[in-house]
Amino acid sequence: MSATSGTDDVISAAILVIGDEILSGRTKDKNIGHIADHCTMIGIQVKEVRVVADEEDEIVAAVNALRARYTYVFTTGGIGPTHDDITADCIAKAFGVGIDHHPEVKALLIENFKRRNVEPTTARLRMARIPDGAEIVENKVSVAPGFKLGNVIVMAGIPAVMQVMLDSVTPRLKTGKKMLSVTIELMRPEGEIADLFAETQKEFPDVPMGSYPFNREARVFGTQLVLRSTDPNRLAAAEQRLRERLRAANIPA
Amino acid sequence: MSATSGTDDVISAAILVIGDEILSGRTKDKNIGHIADHCTMIGIQVKEVRVVADEEDEIVAAVNALRARYTYVFTTGGIGPTHDDITADCIAKAFGVGIDHHPEVKALLIENFKRRNVEPTTARLRMARIPDGAEIVENKVSVAPGFKLGNVIVMAGIPAVMQVMLDSVTPRLKTGKKMLSVTIELMRPEGEIADLFAETQKEFPDVPMGSYPFNREARVFGTQLVLRSTDPNRLAAAEQRLRERLRAANIPA
Repeated sequence: MSATSGTDDVISAAILVIGDEILSGRTKDKNIGHIADHCTMIGIQVKEVRVVADEEDEIVAAVNALRARYTYVFTTGGIGPTHDDITADCIAKAFGVGIDHHPEVKALLIENFKRRNVEPTTARLRMARIPDGAEIVENKVSVAPGFKLGNVIVMAGIPAVMQVMLDSVTPRLKTGKKMLSVTIELMRPEGEIADLFAETQKEFPDVPMGSYPFNREARVFGTQLVLRSTDPNRLAAAEQRLRERLRAANIPA
Repeated sequence: MSATSGTDDVISAAILVIGDEILSGRTKDKNIGHIADHCTMIGIQVKEVRVVADEEDEIVAAVNALRARYTYVFTTGGIGPTHDDITADCIAKAFGVGIDHHPEVKALLIENFKRRNVEPTTARLRMARIPDGAEIVENKVSVAPGFKLGNVIVMAGIPAVMQVMLDSVTPRLKTGKKMLSVTIELMRPEGEIADLFAETQKEFPDVPMGSYPFNREARVFGTQLVLRSTDPNRLAAAEQRLRERLRAANIPA
């Protein structure tokens, strides 16, 4: 999982958030940021995010578009026991495989229901329905698991549950070179460094450079310049060149 | 803008967030939730969200896919003065129109630069580049405006700036019937109400119903049942039926 254990290949990913409650604004998503941080840390580059409604056609189309394009697709949401939880069925449909109660998961759930003294109703056992051929992704928080089918990792929508599932599946993922970054903070507006910043970007086209204005209080504003590369030497060289240019322009950094 | 002023038509929207910093996890998006809330409030249904990188092909493809499909597309990010701000050019390319300095916007910016005693550099004047045929969307916070071209509304990434742009463009948007909702909170797990909830959904297929588990503290958990409709009568009828079923099952709600 270290920066040196990967290969030169880019390992890419998409995040697919499933749920009407995000689109209506009722629930504010907290999973995109967490998965993005996690992927960056382990050397997987998130290239796209989509949020879709709890509608079969939308979910199936998004899963198939994204899984064809990226190394991994992480989905969140729609794997609970109620009628609006249709993610597992949609994944089965997207892959053209069957779906049924998974014997081990069913046993796990029934054991858990017994301990909690709740009835193993049909609705509750819906959470044991796993597409054929999928591997289970453990849920240490609330038992009902996620799963991994091909390159698609299906996780819960509740952040605490999603997070343990993500940790649980991580050792099974291919990871690439870790994306490294350097941030230079200036107490100047973007417009002041745009030209020299663009020149530095031209000189290092392999080191993506982004500029992010911020304001902390009413009158405290500035710009963060972020340089990114999987190659620590190129990153250091680009940083040095940018700092030279900032010095030449009398901009403290 | 009231629930009665709209038409029966569904007014739909997509949100397109543009920026490497969201995909890397460096910046946590705050705009999706705000735009979703705003749209719900004014009777526009957000049907899809995408986040894409600062890459021309990705942005152009997403803009064209989404604008063909929804009444409106709201974009955020990539309209500053630095080389990674390519949204305006991508919108022009997506629509197949030219892009140049907009005379009024240029005058606005130059006036503002004078007042702040900063030089009107080429980089700074990049923010006056607006695709041909676009209408300006005012920015009361930091002057450099957003714009509306066809059904695509282009806004800043900084939340405070995006929010004033959204308010500014709102009177120009068609709005539909307002989506109303009712939330019933139960101190019971989802599994316990899944069957009666599914039955109620079957009885009211036109009133989408979602179930959202929550836990407030370690041992305080429950479920929120959310019913949604643009028709207050159907919503009330569905709510009444669901409450009857909950009572019959001895579940306090």
